[in-house]
Amino acid sequence: MKKVCILGSTGSIGTQALDVIGTEDNFSVTALAAGSNIQLLEEQIRKFRPTFAAVYDEEGAKMLRENVKDTAVKVLAGLDGIREAASAGAEITVTAMVGSMGILPTLDAIEAGSDIALANKETMVCAGDIVRSAAKRKNIHIIPVDSEHSAIFQCIGEKQSAVKRIFLTASGGPFAGKTRKELERVTVRDALRHPNWSMGAKITIDSASMMNKGLEVLEAVQLFGVEAKDIQVVIHRQSIVHSMVEFQDHSVIAQLGWPDMRLPIAYALSYPKVAMPCVKPLDFTEKMTLTFEKPDLDTFGCLRLGYEAARMGGTMPTAYSSAGEAAVSLFLAEKCTFLEIEEFVEKTIAAHKTVINPTLSCIIETDKWARAYVSALWEGKQ
Amino acid sequence: MKKVCILGSTGSIGTQALDVIGTEDNFSVTALAAGSNIQLLEEQIRKFRPTFAAVYDEEGAKMLRENVKDTAVKVLAGLDGIREAASAGAEITVTAMVGSMGILPTLDAIEAGSDIALANKETMVCAGDIVRSAAKRKNIHIIPVDSEHSAIFQCIGEKQSAVKRIFLTASGGPFAGKTRKELERVTVRDALRHPNWSMGAKITIDSASMMNKGLEVLEAVQLFGVEAKDIQVVIHRQSIVHSMVEFQDHSVIAQLGWPDMRLPIAYALSYPKVAMPCVKPLDFTEKMTLTFEKPDLDTFGCLRLGYEAARMGGTMPTAYSSAGEAAVSLFLAEKCTFLEIEEFVEKTIAAHKTVINPTLSCIIETDKWARAYVSALWEGKQ
Repeated sequence: MKKVCILGSTGSIGTQALDVIGTEDNFSVTALAAGSNIQLLEEQIRKFRPTFAAVYDEEGAKMLRENVKDTAVKVLAGLDGIREAASAGAEITVTAMVGSMGILPTLDAIEAGSDIALANKETMVCAGDIVRSAAKRKNIHIIPVDSEHSAIFQCIGEKQSAVKRIFLTASGGPFAGKTRKELERVTVRDALRHPNWSMGAKITIDSASMMNKGLEVLEAVQLFGVEAKDIQVVIHRQSIVHSMVEFQDHSVIAQLGWPDMRLPIAYALSYPKVAMPCVKPLDFTEKMTLTFEKPDLDTFGCLRLGYEAARMGGTMPTAYSSAGEAAVSLFLAEKCTFLEIEEFVEKTIAAHKTVINPTLSCIIETDKWARAYVSALWEGKQ
Repeated sequence: MKKVCILGSTGSIGTQALDVIGTEDNFSVTALAAGSNIQLLEEQIRKFRPTFAAVYDEEGAKMLRENVKDTAVKVLAGLDGIREAASAGAEITVTAMVGSMGILPTLDAIEAGSDIALANKETMVCAGDIVRSAAKRKNIHIIPVDSEHSAIFQCIGEKQSAVKRIFLTASGGPFAGKTRKELERVTVRDALRHPNWSMGAKITIDSASMMNKGLEVLEAVQLFGVEAKDIQVVIHRQSIVHSMVEFQDHSVIAQLGWPDMRLPIAYALSYPKVAMPCVKPLDFTEKMTLTFEKPDLDTFGCLRLGYEAARMGGTMPTAYSSAGEAAVSLFLAEKCTFLEIEEFVEKTIAAHKTVINPTLSCIIETDKWARAYVSALWEGKQ
């Protein structure tokens, strides 16, 4: 039985991870952590019987503690509670929290010797150097859960030293093919309607703006040691090819599957073993057409800005990521337009003074600064 | 310097292998063997300075010996000469002879401790069990050169035990989409016009009839230990995806590249190192469309018969392969029609009494019998 901790258990990745775990006998759940959805967390506690359950929201934690006092679970509260849950001795930790608040608990899990099933891309985008050196020191694996990075991880196999380029596929999201003019009027509802993937709200908006692909480029730079200039984003509308790797001999290896997050989740949870099937197989005898084309960096400026952030390095990816988080929150609250997400990110990047080789506290400062800067930009427009 | 022997050096694969070797400093040529093209073989001798050169045609060998007496090369003659060349201490032997006559020299090379860059598929189709057990005993690698099998080999990597199915791609050849009626009148010239691949005459005809894909199914059964029922042939007209492997978790890994045999040849020659590039990289930012559909087993009966031969096992794949070779020779000599290739193969299979676990001499007997049977079928129709 592999001991699993899930940080962000009530979100999209968290619930799907528990789906996978629920169909197999090979896992036991050590700890669950959630933001505020204590009703779903209680159901998960009763089903998976973890030793620890942490709730970010302190009031929620209090209520949950009352509601599950008939069970043996120990309920923890706040970021400290989540960090305690992350340190509770799991063999693999699914880091599925939203945004940069995933960084500290991920580092705690690594320090406690847990492998990481990495779903929180901000961790690698903002603090990749620190996370990788901690992982190396503790001799643990970081197995990506993002479908693209899981694909790249699978394609590379034992051939890391022969990697030449990465083709990071992108569905293009709900607005692929649209013009800037058309993007002016899109609503939250439009942006949440992803054609292929069922995901959380923040990542779905990022997918519509292609900010998500910018973050994924930054994540791939950290995970696979490839420069951003050697990561080519490719529009692939069908979301069947999850990414590809070109090797030194110009041979390309691709990973394919249905667009279902349970596939990369199961891969990461079972690694280095091969997972049991949790999705139906692909059928190439039914007519299938796969298309590839270049992305429109003029229309989807958030992706272009991701490459800029990668080129600057240091704290710039944090400024990019955290400005994006703040801007998406404003958009989801219908306080700004879709194109203002890009505007706020671009202005934050322009204003940020990059610190090279930042410490963790410097990264956390940058995160706070970028959020405040976006707030100020928004205020200034009111 | 890796010492290389090329059996069939004047053919399509042989010349491309020497192209690859000529652009790298890592190889030295120990021995070359050819059928009868002594003019080209002489050029190769002068360029690559092998220790041995073998010519199947005894008269040709005599002439060559005279023509290159100013060099240090030792010219050998006949099948015995080729077998001596195959045993001459190469570290890797490219087996690029046409047809079942590749079997004995391949076994000789294995006995001499050479890795095999396998381009002669008949070796595995007819004598797979014997070849594999010899390879195991001598602890040598068999690295496939067929683009599909090279792709499968690359996709499997270290995950042999988790392989579930193989998707063997097929361009469909020049007659994809045609009806039986339309195939009645096709000429040798039509059949030699392959849309994507530049190959030798025999394999190009086999590609038009899809006999080649039947042989590849049988080859894959032997190379990868997968049952024929778990090998799905998929029509992929663009010949960019060279094959795919489905693993236990329903994740699919594919290998892609331009349709250029130098890619799998370089892969095999360099294995386990990754080869230097000898083809241009794929470009997914130019619009690219890849299609997949099921093959038409009713129109292309030679493929269906390959699955039947696989189901029977024993000497039946030899009967299938050798009948095909004899029938293609008749077609290339314009002595029979395109559809008679299938007719002769089908009748030979129907007449053959399978021997299970055949010895090498039993396989060689079957080869002779099948050729004679096709001759007799042809005679009977005159």
